[in-house]
Amino acid sequence: MYGLIGKMTAVEGQRDVLSAILLESLGKMPGCLSYIVAHDPADDNAIWITEVWTDEAAHRASLQVPEVKAAIHRGLPLVVTFSDAQVTTPIGGVGLG
Amino acid sequence: MYGLIGKMTAVEGQRDVLSAILLESLGKMPGCLSYIVAHDPADDNAIWITEVWTDEAAHRASLQVPEVKAAIHRGLPLVVTFSDAQVTTPIGGVGLG
Repeated sequence: MYGLIGKMTAVEGQRDVLSAILLESLGKMPGCLSYIVAHDPADDNAIWITEVWTDEAAHRASLQVPEVKAAIHRGLPLVVTFSDAQVTTPIGGVGLG
Repeated sequence: MYGLIGKMTAVEGQRDVLSAILLESLGKMPGCLSYIVAHDPADDNAIWITEVWTDEAAHRASLQVPEVKAAIHRGLPLVVTFSDAQVTTPIGGVGLG
């Protein structure tokens, strides 16, 4: 498995709009075992995203899905920064697929 | 929902043992929607844990489940440090329950 943890900081006041965009194409990503969008209770503009994929290739392929590309196109202008990026190797747990 | 992201650093050489302990009582935690144990590919001793609970009370209650208490008792001596702790407010996604 291939995992990602990261934080996005949205343009002031745009976190809810950006979160909705992140959530809308989730059903269309083959090999996606977990993709959780969370707000940061200590920062009104921050979103934490934790992802688990069958492998890195599935993650890369998802970025080419038309609905996902369209979502990225709409979401990117609402992002100020990406930070705290961490690649992981998930080994098990609850909520995988 | 209530979420946690955090990193544990295991005693040198004990990551696999600690990971197995973390995974073994997962089925016994009411209100646990996601609990993913992952290795850090850049640090042989580090484990990333990402969790989603129905609410904070469910997380607190899990620490009192006998199997979980026993696992904590066995696992703690294998932990050198906890770091990068982040509380989140999950709002949706794939792999929740």
